[in-house]
Amino acid sequence: MGEFELIRRYFRSAALEKAGPQAAIIQSIGDDAALLQPALGQQLVISTDSLVEGVHFPLDYLPADLGYRALAVAVSDLAAMAATPLAFTLALTLPAVREDWLAGFAEGLAAAAADHRISLIGGDTTRGPLNLGLTVFGQVAAGQALRRAGAAAGDLLCVGGPLGDAGAGLALVQSQAAPPALDPAGRDYLLQRFWRPRAQCGLGMALAGVASAGLDISDGLLADAGHLAAASGVAVHIRAADLPCSAAVACWPEPQRLNWMLGAGDDYVLLFSLPARHRARLEADGWWLRVIGEVAAGEGVWLDQGQGPERVSALPGYQHFKES
Amino acid sequence: MGEFELIRRYFRSAALEKAGPQAAIIQSIGDDAALLQPALGQQLVISTDSLVEGVHFPLDYLPADLGYRALAVAVSDLAAMAATPLAFTLALTLPAVREDWLAGFAEGLAAAAADHRISLIGGDTTRGPLNLGLTVFGQVAAGQALRRAGAAAGDLLCVGGPLGDAGAGLALVQSQAAPPALDPAGRDYLLQRFWRPRAQCGLGMALAGVASAGLDISDGLLADAGHLAAASGVAVHIRAADLPCSAAVACWPEPQRLNWMLGAGDDYVLLFSLPARHRARLEADGWWLRVIGEVAAGEGVWLDQGQGPERVSALPGYQHFKES
Repeated sequence: MGEFELIRRYFRSAALEKAGPQAAIIQSIGDDAALLQPALGQQLVISTDSLVEGVHFPLDYLPADLGYRALAVAVSDLAAMAATPLAFTLALTLPAVREDWLAGFAEGLAAAAADHRISLIGGDTTRGPLNLGLTVFGQVAAGQALRRAGAAAGDLLCVGGPLGDAGAGLALVQSQAAPPALDPAGRDYLLQRFWRPRAQCGLGMALAGVASAGLDISDGLLADAGHLAAASGVAVHIRAADLPCSAAVACWPEPQRLNWMLGAGDDYVLLFSLPARHRARLEADGWWLRVIGEVAAGEGVWLDQGQGPERVSALPGYQHFKES
Repeated sequence: MGEFELIRRYFRSAALEKAGPQAAIIQSIGDDAALLQPALGQQLVISTDSLVEGVHFPLDYLPADLGYRALAVAVSDLAAMAATPLAFTLALTLPAVREDWLAGFAEGLAAAAADHRISLIGGDTTRGPLNLGLTVFGQVAAGQALRRAGAAAGDLLCVGGPLGDAGAGLALVQSQAAPPALDPAGRDYLLQRFWRPRAQCGLGMALAGVASAGLDISDGLLADAGHLAAASGVAVHIRAADLPCSAAVACWPEPQRLNWMLGAGDDYVLLFSLPARHRARLEADGWWLRVIGEVAAGEGVWLDQGQGPERVSALPGYQHFKES
C-alpha cells in the first residue's frame, strides 16, 4: 500500500477531520498546507510535542491508547494557555505499515479528538523508528492567554485535579507491585489516567483573564512550580499536607505517595496562581480546585512537610538527556 | 547538560528567534505554547514535515547542511501556497547530546531562517533515533492561497526553476560517477542545490491571485503534476523537450537527465498552471519561468517525447512504504 492510500484509509475520516469546530478551518488535509483563520480578536496558540517509543511511552501498549494519549498530552498545552482547541497536525514516523496498529492508533486518536473537540488538518507519514510529532492549534482572545509569568505575592497556588495518578498508573503499566488495598476499579482508574488523560481545556478557558499565571503539570509538580516561580519572579510555597490525591493513589504508603505527587510527570492537571478574590466564583461555577500553597515575594520553590518551609534545591522533574 | 539548558544554548538566539517579521509573533519560546496573530484579513498557512535519517537524508551529512535543508524543505510548502513565511516550530529527537552536532545544526537552521525570513517560536527536544519534525507557519490574504485545485483547460503549465538538480546532487552525495564534462563549479552547484535548496517564496507570493493552481515539486515532476491534475479535474500535458535543466545537469547523457527531471524529488521549484494573459507581466517583473506544457480537458498526466502525447500510467514519484 502506498503512503497516500495509507493516509487516506486511516486518517481521512469525519471522526478525525470534523471532531472540532469548523469555522476557523479554511483548508484541511489534501493540499500542500492547511489554512486556519482564528476568529476576529483571537490569537492562535501553537504547541509542538514529539513522542518516542521507550521514552514517552512504555513499549508494551495498545495502539489505541497511544493514539489517545499522544493527542491528549499535546492538547494539554492548549489548556495550559487557556485556549480553545481548534486543530492539529500529525507527523507519523513508522517502521512499517501494520494495518492493525494503524487502525487502533487512528481509533484512539479519533476518541481523543472527539473528547477535546479538535480536528486533524494535516500531517506527514514517513518510514523510520516510531516517532509521533503532534502540533496543536487553539485560539484565545488577545491578551487573555494564561502565561507562566504573572503570579504575584499573595496569590493562591492551586491545582485543577488530583496529583500522582500518572505516577501510580505508570507503576502499574510497568508491572510493579500494587498495595493490597488497591481494588480492580482503582487499578482501572489509574491505568485510564495514565493512558487516557483528559486535558483540562474547560478549566483552562475558565481561567482566562482570571488566573494570574499557570501551566500544565507535565514535568512534575515541583519542577513545574519552579517554572512558574522563575517566569513570574516570585517564590512559590507548597504545603505537602494540602496536596490532593485520588483514593487509588492513597492506597500507597508514604513516601511513595508524596514522591509521585511532587515529582512524577504526566498528570496533565493545571497548576495556577489565583488572586484570592476569584476563588469563590470559580468554585460556584463548579470547578474542582485545591489550594496547595501561596505565592510569595522571593524566589524558588518551598515545601512545607510540617516543619516549616524548606527550599527545594534539586527539582526532580523529568529532563531528557539529564544523564549526559 | 539538561534538556532546558541544551535548548537555551543552541536554539535561543536572535539569529533564530528574530529571523523573520515579528509583528505576528505575540509569544515565542518559553511558555507552554506560542502565540501568533496573523494580520487582519490574512489566513494562517500551516505545514508539517518530518525528516528521518537514512530516509530523507543520506547518513553522511554535515549537521549545518541538514539544518538548512530541513527548514528550507518545510518552507517550500509555504511557497507552494503563495504564503509569506512567519514562524516555525522544531521537534528534535536525538540519540544523544553531541555539542558539535547541535552547534552545526543550529547554525544551518539559522542560515535557512535568515534566507527565508522565518522565526523559531517553539519546539520540543527528546532522546531517541534522529528525527526532525518541523511545522511552518505563513500568512496569505483570505482567498489568495495557491491550491492544487483550480487549473483550467487552456492554462499554461509552468515551472519556476530548473529540474533535476536535486537528483544529480544526490547522485554526487552518494558518490556515483560524474560525467567528465562536470567541472568543480558545476559539482559545487549541484551539492548546494541538494543540501541548501531555496524555497521559492518570492515567486509563490507573486503567484497569489495570479496562478490558477500550483504546488512545489517534492515528489518529482510527474507525480506532482498528477496531484495537480487530480485535484483540478483536468489533464496535464508535458513536453519533454521544453523541460529546463541547469548546465550542470546537462552534463549527464540521456536517459539519466530526463529521468531526473521527470522523476527525482527534492527540487522544490514551483509547478503551476497560469492563465496565459498573466505570463508577460510575471516575466516583465523578472520572474524566471518556463512553460513546459498545457492544461487540457480530461484527466491524467501526458508526456510528449517527440512522438505525440502518451499517458503516464505509473507515476514514479517517491512514496514511503511503497514496497509493502
